[in-house]
Amino acid sequence: MPAYNAFYAQSGGVTPVINASAAGVLQTAAKYPDQINKVYAGQDGILGALSEDLIDTSLESAADIEALKMTPAGAFGSCRYKLKSLEEHRAEYERLIEVFKAHNIRYFFYNGGGDSQDTCHKVSQLSESMGYPITCVGVPKTIDNDLPFTDCSPGFASVAKYVAVSILEASMDVASMSSSSTKVFVMEVMGRHAGWIAAASGLAADERGLGPDIILFPEVDFDQEAFLAKVDATVKAKGQCSIVVSEGAHTADGTFLADSGIRDAFGHAQLGGVAPVVTGMIKESLGLKCHWAVCDYLQRAARHIGSKTDVEHAYALGEAAVELAVSGKNAVMPTIVRTSNTPYTWEIGHAPLADVANVEIKMPANYISDDGFFITDECREYLSPLIQGEDYPSYTNGLPDYVVLKKKKVTKKLSPFDIS
Amino acid sequence: MPAYNAFYAQSGGVTPVINASAAGVLQTAAKYPDQINKVYAGQDGILGALSEDLIDTSLESAADIEALKMTPAGAFGSCRYKLKSLEEHRAEYERLIEVFKAHNIRYFFYNGGGDSQDTCHKVSQLSESMGYPITCVGVPKTIDNDLPFTDCSPGFASVAKYVAVSILEASMDVASMSSSSTKVFVMEVMGRHAGWIAAASGLAADERGLGPDIILFPEVDFDQEAFLAKVDATVKAKGQCSIVVSEGAHTADGTFLADSGIRDAFGHAQLGGVAPVVTGMIKESLGLKCHWAVCDYLQRAARHIGSKTDVEHAYALGEAAVELAVSGKNAVMPTIVRTSNTPYTWEIGHAPLADVANVEIKMPANYISDDGFFITDECREYLSPLIQGEDYPSYTNGLPDYVVLKKKKVTKKLSPFDIS
Repeated sequence: MPAYNAFYAQSGGVTPVINASAAGVLQTAAKYPDQINKVYAGQDGILGALSEDLIDTSLESAADIEALKMTPAGAFGSCRYKLKSLEEHRAEYERLIEVFKAHNIRYFFYNGGGDSQDTCHKVSQLSESMGYPITCVGVPKTIDNDLPFTDCSPGFASVAKYVAVSILEASMDVASMSSSSTKVFVMEVMGRHAGWIAAASGLAADERGLGPDIILFPEVDFDQEAFLAKVDATVKAKGQCSIVVSEGAHTADGTFLADSGIRDAFGHAQLGGVAPVVTGMIKESLGLKCHWAVCDYLQRAARHIGSKTDVEHAYALGEAAVELAVSGKNAVMPTIVRTSNTPYTWEIGHAPLADVANVEIKMPANYISDDGFFITDECREYLSPLIQGEDYPSYTNGLPDYVVLKKKKVTKKLSPFDIS
Repeated sequence: MPAYNAFYAQSGGVTPVINASAAGVLQTAAKYPDQINKVYAGQDGILGALSEDLIDTSLESAADIEALKMTPAGAFGSCRYKLKSLEEHRAEYERLIEVFKAHNIRYFFYNGGGDSQDTCHKVSQLSESMGYPITCVGVPKTIDNDLPFTDCSPGFASVAKYVAVSILEASMDVASMSSSSTKVFVMEVMGRHAGWIAAASGLAADERGLGPDIILFPEVDFDQEAFLAKVDATVKAKGQCSIVVSEGAHTADGTFLADSGIRDAFGHAQLGGVAPVVTGMIKESLGLKCHWAVCDYLQRAARHIGSKTDVEHAYALGEAAVELAVSGKNAVMPTIVRTSNTPYTWEIGHAPLADVANVEIKMPANYISDDGFFITDECREYLSPLIQGEDYPSYTNGLPDYVVLKKKKVTKKLSPFDIS
């Protein structure tokens, strides 16, 4: 069997460990020279395939590829561009196949969330119907932790660790000054549709009273009265209150709290965040001194406090994707299978892309406490192993040695393509 | 000479390393049993002295005291309570002396910023005039980096490292997605009156185009037109723009940007932050997709990414405070003296509290670039050594082993005191 080239692309919102998956793909592909020749990476994800902007990863140094393991963000660029139905976007799918053909690409590794797994699946279908064989393997990734079949999605665990450590530290700050200063601290985290990230902050709560006292989830309709009563009771009981709020927190009618009333001087609604809105309510109703923070990209880029477990997952999934491909598996996604909680052990499995595509996993109802303001022990049991272990980048002059690749392009062979 | 007790208190906004100074004080005091008997810590700073809420630090385990070196926030509690002039607050100063007398305290170590050094100085003056000898030594601390005579103020360097690492990471996130998603990222940092913290973010800027492109300082009157032109030019040149804005950024008439127009649904001005205001301007004028973050307490509690240099400074200053006191120095504050830039070397000096009290050091004008939007090489040279070295806390189950002390109280001997 002759060796063919492979295509690898990063898709959607980047994470602290998506580059670890890239390292897994590239270093493993190099072990199978009889099957995989070069790995071309898409510049800015799938857009790079459509526009024939292919990065020749063989021109990167081994040290730089190794450094991907400790580098956040998307080393090859990512994009928010979704190829939807084959019917509507047939020309784009066909263009992909055309580019793959032109560059002798017969392996397609797509590193992304649910939408990307769907695209990967569609490419595999088209490859079959167009008679050009491409082995399509998805590499899971999303801080939203909403992919099915896998114990967790790489990227989530590092964000989880960041928010747990951050609220632990901030809650200690508040506790040490609340007798004469700030009584309430509100921290906003990501999670438009699911409360996984907000839930992870609950890991910082312990018998010493540290960590968050209240968590606001998108899964629980926001009840202002109950919330303010809980804040009031907490401040009365312990002198201060730390709150984590998901950006997706909303009232029963579906209105995001972030959209509920902040206007600029011209009367225009201000987009986000939810933290100042919640803080405003508390100040207004309870008259307490408050502070608030919005983590935004800091949380999903914070490789400096990445979870070792997460880095290992991410690398192993990239590695497994290549191994599945060279062993003849097609249209699959490698997964993390949890084999034990204490100690946490896991192995690699895989699932058919046909089953993965467009299925979103929600946080189980029994992960949220009855009053809706905290996580349960079941939730802690699931989450705790994921944030375990530290995997620090190396530093020079006080800053992490994050790598920026050379990203040398492959010579184009086709005429330009108009991306809709 | 018989041994007397010592009083130690933490004052003002806490930092990632103020507890390292506490460890320096406590571990060093233990080396001088002939002079210092017990160290009593004020519960919630100087309030604990006024209310006679004294923590017997001799009842803490050696391991817990050691763990203070890696624990953020104020382990004994801090407060925002300023004793002002001797004339207005004479009763409070006299109460301090009364409490010190009752508990055989003849050493006063006050760990704080400019106000605290002033209080420490006043206590030393009163001690003289009241004929009760107390050796008063300040221990410098402030993330604002505005204390005179010392090369830097402990706490600042760790915040500096946090903001530099955070904007480095976030800028990589933006760069990897800007072709199809967010083009501008705005990060708000502390610094109401001085731009030291904002300036430190500039350390992340390198020849690869990472880090902040624009920094907004309180030292430079905000010029909206020039700012938007700079953002526009940056996005046109490199595809994206990362911005760090100090909470103290203001227009020429002194209006804080944070107060300039955000209103809630009822028309009430929303307090802070400045990041959403700046982001709003960019969206409105340039129509670019933006994201923003507000670091708030996360930055000053982030011991997980503390600067090793900072931790060493903080500990050494606590140690030096005790050594100055037992060697008979009074009404002084130990300082950091920079002896070389490359390699960074430093030693401990000291300055009279009379000279330190209420003097605020500003950022030198030549630390800000001519266009007002960045730092100069002189500034980098000063800042760079401060963030060097990592000093990670230990972790259990994925979270830092931050210590919470037992804080057992000394039996009160006096009648209650009414704190104004």
